[in-house]
Amino acid sequence: MTQTAAFYRGGRRFAVEPVPTSEPGPGEVAVDVAFVGICGTDMHVYHGNMDARVGHNRIIGHEMSGHVAAVGDDVAAFAPGDAVVVRPLHPCGTCPACLAGNSHICHSLKFLGLDTDGAMQGRWVVPAFTLHRLPDGVALDVAALVEPLSVAVHDVRRAALQPGEVALVIGGGPIGMLIAMVAQAVGARVILSEINESRLAMAAEMGFEGLNPKAVNVAETVLDQTGGAGADVVFEVSGTQPGVDLMTDAVRARGRIVMVAIHAKKAQVDLFRFFWREITMHGARVYESQDYDRAIQMIAEGLPVARLITDRHPLAQVQTAFEALDGNPTAMKTLIEIGGAE
Amino acid sequence: MTQTAAFYRGGRRFAVEPVPTSEPGPGEVAVDVAFVGICGTDMHVYHGNMDARVGHNRIIGHEMSGHVAAVGDDVAAFAPGDAVVVRPLHPCGTCPACLAGNSHICHSLKFLGLDTDGAMQGRWVVPAFTLHRLPDGVALDVAALVEPLSVAVHDVRRAALQPGEVALVIGGGPIGMLIAMVAQAVGARVILSEINESRLAMAAEMGFEGLNPKAVNVAETVLDQTGGAGADVVFEVSGTQPGVDLMTDAVRARGRIVMVAIHAKKAQVDLFRFFWREITMHGARVYESQDYDRAIQMIAEGLPVARLITDRHPLAQVQTAFEALDGNPTAMKTLIEIGGAE
Repeated sequence: MTQTAAFYRGGRRFAVEPVPTSEPGPGEVAVDVAFVGICGTDMHVYHGNMDARVGHNRIIGHEMSGHVAAVGDDVAAFAPGDAVVVRPLHPCGTCPACLAGNSHICHSLKFLGLDTDGAMQGRWVVPAFTLHRLPDGVALDVAALVEPLSVAVHDVRRAALQPGEVALVIGGGPIGMLIAMVAQAVGARVILSEINESRLAMAAEMGFEGLNPKAVNVAETVLDQTGGAGADVVFEVSGTQPGVDLMTDAVRARGRIVMVAIHAKKAQVDLFRFFWREITMHGARVYESQDYDRAIQMIAEGLPVARLITDRHPLAQVQTAFEALDGNPTAMKTLIEIGGAE
Repeated sequence: MTQTAAFYRGGRRFAVEPVPTSEPGPGEVAVDVAFVGICGTDMHVYHGNMDARVGHNRIIGHEMSGHVAAVGDDVAAFAPGDAVVVRPLHPCGTCPACLAGNSHICHSLKFLGLDTDGAMQGRWVVPAFTLHRLPDGVALDVAALVEPLSVAVHDVRRAALQPGEVALVIGGGPIGMLIAMVAQAVGARVILSEINESRLAMAAEMGFEGLNPKAVNVAETVLDQTGGAGADVVFEVSGTQPGVDLMTDAVRARGRIVMVAIHAKKAQVDLFRFFWREITMHGARVYESQDYDRAIQMIAEGLPVARLITDRHPLAQVQTAFEALDGNPTAMKTLIEIGGAE
């Protein structure tokens, strides 16, 4: 039996090729992939920024949904036909972080779809422990957003966000928008800082107050709206120096900042403000098993994440999908449609 | 009745002058000052860095001990003769921080001895709510260290430091040394990073492992000693860029950093590491009432803070005291001896 797979070949090129399907070994499950979302990290791969890590013969993709096609001999928890999503983390189990119960930030974490082959293929063989079952009635296209929604659930949980609190989200890409949605579901009042007017329009549609830092002083506006206190929680999702400046200016005394963005370079941080206002900052990376469970539950209960899906392309058109998404100001989430093994 | 007071006159000069004693008004207490410690902040005043805030006619000093001399009509909680220390914070009571129960970081906090006249005088009149009574048997010279010890107690409490944890203290001045002592009292293993060999010798004497970053790679050493994990808690007390670099390099996954130092300029911070290792950072400033209570208790129980007192001068020699302390590599804590009103 054969299937189709999209290989990242370097230099912003993908090659879509037929390959033999693999069988699941002990502890493994083969999943017929239905949908794969393109993540910001995938776009980094496309841009060549992660060649040292992924090489030029890698099937990428980790935001996905599908059906179990086959299970290894010793796998009892799943059966063919089960609708599932993959939590794409393979921890070592022996490093200090794993031993302390924080395997999602394992010192030697393998991220499926970057460090190993990923979901942009018809049939994907993964460890059974990475699977989460989907309840009946969850559409598989929407389920491809479980992975990024789990990031948002994790971020909001790290903040210990409470009903009635004011949450400022800096950066309105897919993760920022999902954080805003989760924060709103928790019962917080959400303010979103974003320079892209198309994204601000989407935010308004979803009930978030959008502020464009090119038009208004966001920190002053947040202070004005909170009786001079500032936001209870700030999510820094922009990865920019102005975002880092805003996070300390806009947060209240004893408020919490969640560092979601990947800052490739060291940033200038107002540590005096951390001291003066006793600010707390939590780094937040990927998700834990309970975040997947909660994200699946929120989608099953109707969180309107489908609104974020702006583009769809078949696997054969993966090259077009990346080219169309790159720098597109109106795109939010692109799905690759895959039909499983042939 | 008259007393003697030391006025900061600008340009690294103090003038010691006789002044009339004040009587306590409603809600106030007059304290005959016994000892006043020179704080790093007082040294900043001496250097002229805080002229805009304190002016050139200011009695400074806030680390102190003394006896109640007289109380205002409505003050029942204290009586003449009581041994006391002053928690030198006068919050507004109405700002968002005060209303949220965080009056120690009041947006309009008046710090006694900077924003109002302080303790370098024979008789100091203060609001009664700033007083903490000393138990019998606590020497007044040692009690002058309650204020800086309360800073250390607050910092360690912000870290939620647990017995058996590894605490790295970056910077071994008086506050760093007191944090190390409190951390050790909690049951943590303490490592102190400090470039001053005299301070390292004092650290060794107190049972802390000292590391000189000019001689060894402190982060690597901490990792080696913790099975590759890193320190559970890092206290950044140095106020330097190398200290900021070290704090993220040496802390474990999900570890806590406490930002104690005053970084006058924005620092370059490895926010990627915050994200990657899910590090938490808490700003920590001054103290709350419970921190004073705990510091007094620790001193009463024998915490050997007297070891930090390296120099003593009478109030008449305050100029000499500051000159002798300035840049002195072997000095730790200087006390000014005051005899109360004459």
